[in-house]
Amino acid sequence: MAHVSIIGTGNMGQAISGIVTAGGNTVEAFDTSGPDTPVTGDVVVLAVPHPAVADVVAKRGPELAGKVVVDITNPLDFSTFDSLTVPADSSSAAGLAEALPESRVLKAFNTNFAATLAARAVGDQPTTVLVAGDDAEAKALLIDIVAAAGLRGVDAGSLRRARELEAVGFLQLTLAAGEKIGWAGGFAVTP
Amino acid sequence: MAHVSIIGTGNMGQAISGIVTAGGNTVEAFDTSGPDTPVTGDVVVLAVPHPAVADVVAKRGPELAGKVVVDITNPLDFSTFDSLTVPADSSSAAGLAEALPESRVLKAFNTNFAATLAARAVGDQPTTVLVAGDDAEAKALLIDIVAAAGLRGVDAGSLRRARELEAVGFLQLTLAAGEKIGWAGGFAVTP
Repeated sequence: MAHVSIIGTGNMGQAISGIVTAGGNTVEAFDTSGPDTPVTGDVVVLAVPHPAVADVVAKRGPELAGKVVVDITNPLDFSTFDSLTVPADSSSAAGLAEALPESRVLKAFNTNFAATLAARAVGDQPTTVLVAGDDAEAKALLIDIVAAAGLRGVDAGSLRRARELEAVGFLQLTLAAGEKIGWAGGFAVTP
Repeated sequence: MAHVSIIGTGNMGQAISGIVTAGGNTVEAFDTSGPDTPVTGDVVVLAVPHPAVADVVAKRGPELAGKVVVDITNPLDFSTFDSLTVPADSSSAAGLAEALPESRVLKAFNTNFAATLAARAVGDQPTTVLVAGDDAEAKALLIDIVAAAGLRGVDAGSLRRARELEAVGFLQLTLAAGEKIGWAGGFAVTP
């Protein structure tokens, strides 16, 4: 059984929490405005907006050593909705991995809207969580956690693929904001 | 009725040709190894591998002036399957628009596998052609052409979004090459 710490109690944090517990694993949730009691999970999900990731690193960097740390963010420039705030040849997740060299950083959940995590489906397909990272064991652990809840977890490659996952997340957000898709729709990964 | 010139007679050229004619529009197809008779279409689809786009521009640049030119390519580095060959902050389509300043360049079809264009569906969803470009009339024309054949055409934004469309195409190709999805599957766009 995996124990998962989720930092952030917004829509995404709640949806991911629901998935973890539905699969028979355990969750501890942290409100970012609450006290900074230490995380105890083997997996720590940073379910915060991208600009808040740096705060979590500053506060909790040392205690994240050795843990699987999951970046779910889409680093959009929300003032223009026309670009990302990370370097074009990199990603939020790559930046996080650089800031946390002792952690096993994964990119995941950023291509999933909260409603599709809660519904477990996009159209006729199970909701698919695309997971990128350089540690195979860490990816397998997260894929097992989501699969236990009836979702599909797919290894999307090395952490370099986080760049493409963030592009997918960005595009999907612009399509939803432009009412081309709904917030319960989006990219369904069809085998 | 639209008249469409398709340069390239591979899987993608054939599949796009099938869509155009199924919708009641007309096609002329050009084999890149054949004679360079002038294109007569209002819309010209460059259904060639990315490295061949520069040849088409060199040979046909002047005759493409005023036309809607559609870039369908995924500019992968096929030797590594780990990156694109275009600048990270740009796209193949942006490069094409720079090379053809008198044309109305669109990015489209690069997120569709040939089999899903032929089948008209990905899972339970109609195959969706994501179209990016800076000319609203050109986008509407292409969207009408694919919609007439029973596909869904979606305006994915300005030509800047070609960067994200190429990231989606790249990711989808790596997932298929890694047998995470099939060549008749991939990203279904769910409303």
